[in-house]
Amino acid sequence: MNRQVVLVSRPTGVAQADNFAIRESNDPVPGDGQILVHNRFLSVEPAMRGWIADVGNYTAPVGIGEVMRSLAVGRIVASRHPNYAVGEHVAGWFGWQEFAAVDSDAIVRRVTETDLPLSLALGVLGINGVTAHLALTLIGEPKPGDTVLVSTAAGSVGSAVGQIATILGARAVGIAGGADKVRQCVEDFGYAAAIDYKAPELGHAIDAACPNGVDVYFDNTAGVISDTVYPRLTIGARVVICGTASIPAWDPWPTGPRIERHLLVKRARAQGFVIFDHNDRYDASVAQLAAWVREGRLRYAEDVLDGIEACPDALAGLYRGENRGKRVIELR
Amino acid sequence: MNRQVVLVSRPTGVAQADNFAIRESNDPVPGDGQILVHNRFLSVEPAMRGWIADVGNYTAPVGIGEVMRSLAVGRIVASRHPNYAVGEHVAGWFGWQEFAAVDSDAIVRRVTETDLPLSLALGVLGINGVTAHLALTLIGEPKPGDTVLVSTAAGSVGSAVGQIATILGARAVGIAGGADKVRQCVEDFGYAAAIDYKAPELGHAIDAACPNGVDVYFDNTAGVISDTVYPRLTIGARVVICGTASIPAWDPWPTGPRIERHLLVKRARAQGFVIFDHNDRYDASVAQLAAWVREGRLRYAEDVLDGIEACPDALAGLYRGENRGKRVIELR
Repeated sequence: MNRQVVLVSRPTGVAQADNFAIRESNDPVPGDGQILVHNRFLSVEPAMRGWIADVGNYTAPVGIGEVMRSLAVGRIVASRHPNYAVGEHVAGWFGWQEFAAVDSDAIVRRVTETDLPLSLALGVLGINGVTAHLALTLIGEPKPGDTVLVSTAAGSVGSAVGQIATILGARAVGIAGGADKVRQCVEDFGYAAAIDYKAPELGHAIDAACPNGVDVYFDNTAGVISDTVYPRLTIGARVVICGTASIPAWDPWPTGPRIERHLLVKRARAQGFVIFDHNDRYDASVAQLAAWVREGRLRYAEDVLDGIEACPDALAGLYRGENRGKRVIELR
Repeated sequence: MNRQVVLVSRPTGVAQADNFAIRESNDPVPGDGQILVHNRFLSVEPAMRGWIADVGNYTAPVGIGEVMRSLAVGRIVASRHPNYAVGEHVAGWFGWQEFAAVDSDAIVRRVTETDLPLSLALGVLGINGVTAHLALTLIGEPKPGDTVLVSTAAGSVGSAVGQIATILGARAVGIAGGADKVRQCVEDFGYAAAIDYKAPELGHAIDAACPNGVDVYFDNTAGVISDTVYPRLTIGARVVICGTASIPAWDPWPTGPRIERHLLVKRARAQGFVIFDHNDRYDASVAQLAAWVREGRLRYAEDVLDGIEACPDALAGLYRGENRGKRVIELR
């Protein structure tokens, strides 16, 4: 039997446990050209909220009754595709389920870093790390000495952004929620300074941590944090828009202080980044990230939940801020 | 005697006639290294509102009692600078006054297009044309077949943007206020289509004029027009933020629908442009624009006011939308 987590109702904000159900079905059988993957780790991403939402999406939303869309990493247990062999490990769009029979275009990549933990293919060596690396370098373009300010700085993307900025010679400053995450930013991820966005006077805290202003703002949150950062951009600053985690819903569409004047006066640039546009750079990025991990220059934190039963509440928990690293679900 | 227009009080919104006064003073005498310019045309720019404002500025505001900052073009009538000779025409920061004694760094450029009207040095061959050309090409990066949507499309910047977009093979669509300017967009400036932003259902009108969405949005207005355009950007769209003409004041700072999600979902880029960053490209741009003017491919409209007495109300009139082309003031 194959256990699957399906969407049973559409939430207006973040999906809660009761928007999902666990269903049993027969083991899938790979068709011609397909492979059968036995998932070892399932991913939990903030972006899943967008994959479920009806509004403001960049992909068709997950349908009611469908298996929750997700990245996963597992072992090939049957193959009817000439380029993939039983026993290989692959990461891809296998969904929140134990077994997936998929076409080869569902595979993001073959996992070749066999000296490193398999779960990293969903985190620092997966879309989180590659997003951090490519969005920071292609849009943020940090120069040595720049101040790079990162929101959700202890998260799976943010923690990599801060460390890569430091590797590239910039000064990384993190914004995170709560004293624990602020400490984790500085002690584990090497941020030069970190700020608790829940503290009063966020603007003053940013001024103190970024006395020369913000050259690169890596934005995972939008909302009040961004509203406080925009007036502090330097001339020619770059804003990487990577997520909008602080906005609970886009229907009705929320308002905020207009940013056009900041962009004009500072001759600044704000640009959105979605990893799916950058398949051609993916392998090279993973190779670079893996090298930094092996050298001990790129650290990561994981938050491993146990068993498929943990799926339904896993996304809501992410938005409750309860994880301390990349959240994955390990299947037995 | 030298007549000068000075700022006598600071407006909260757009400066009105009574924020200025005309003052007489002695003819200025050029010091060592200076030139004395007899102004022939004074410029009136939407951006002057920002040069006067206390808030949201990119330069120090004009002081109370100071001559209004402005570009002007005139003839050198005395020179104590070795590189400038009496009789040459120059454009530069000479202010709203009849005579200006200035250092050479106030000169933007020597006017060499003596076959074309002198006033063009303040319009299509001045910062308006150069802004249109450089902002469109450096930030907008229109490709053949792209849809380029321009706000204040009949204005001195916008009219050049539309025509340059067309020259570069894109499809230009204009947004302007009122039937006259809409007609001017299509008949005089070659827009493929033009839209009256005062008409009901602006969104439907944009949909009809841009059936494939907006690849480049050249934004001179911000405000409701921009709020209507952002949801219609295509994947990978570019927004050139060149002005915020529709926002009467930035204190208190106005709010609007958040644009982060549009930028993220569309992987779009919004970037501010200020001409003063691009001195190194100025001469080459003017040479290109002059060539297009001579070939009849780049048309312009001028709105010439008569005499320095027209200055105090000239900016307010611009914001009332009464001009039908680049507004300049001709001195006798």
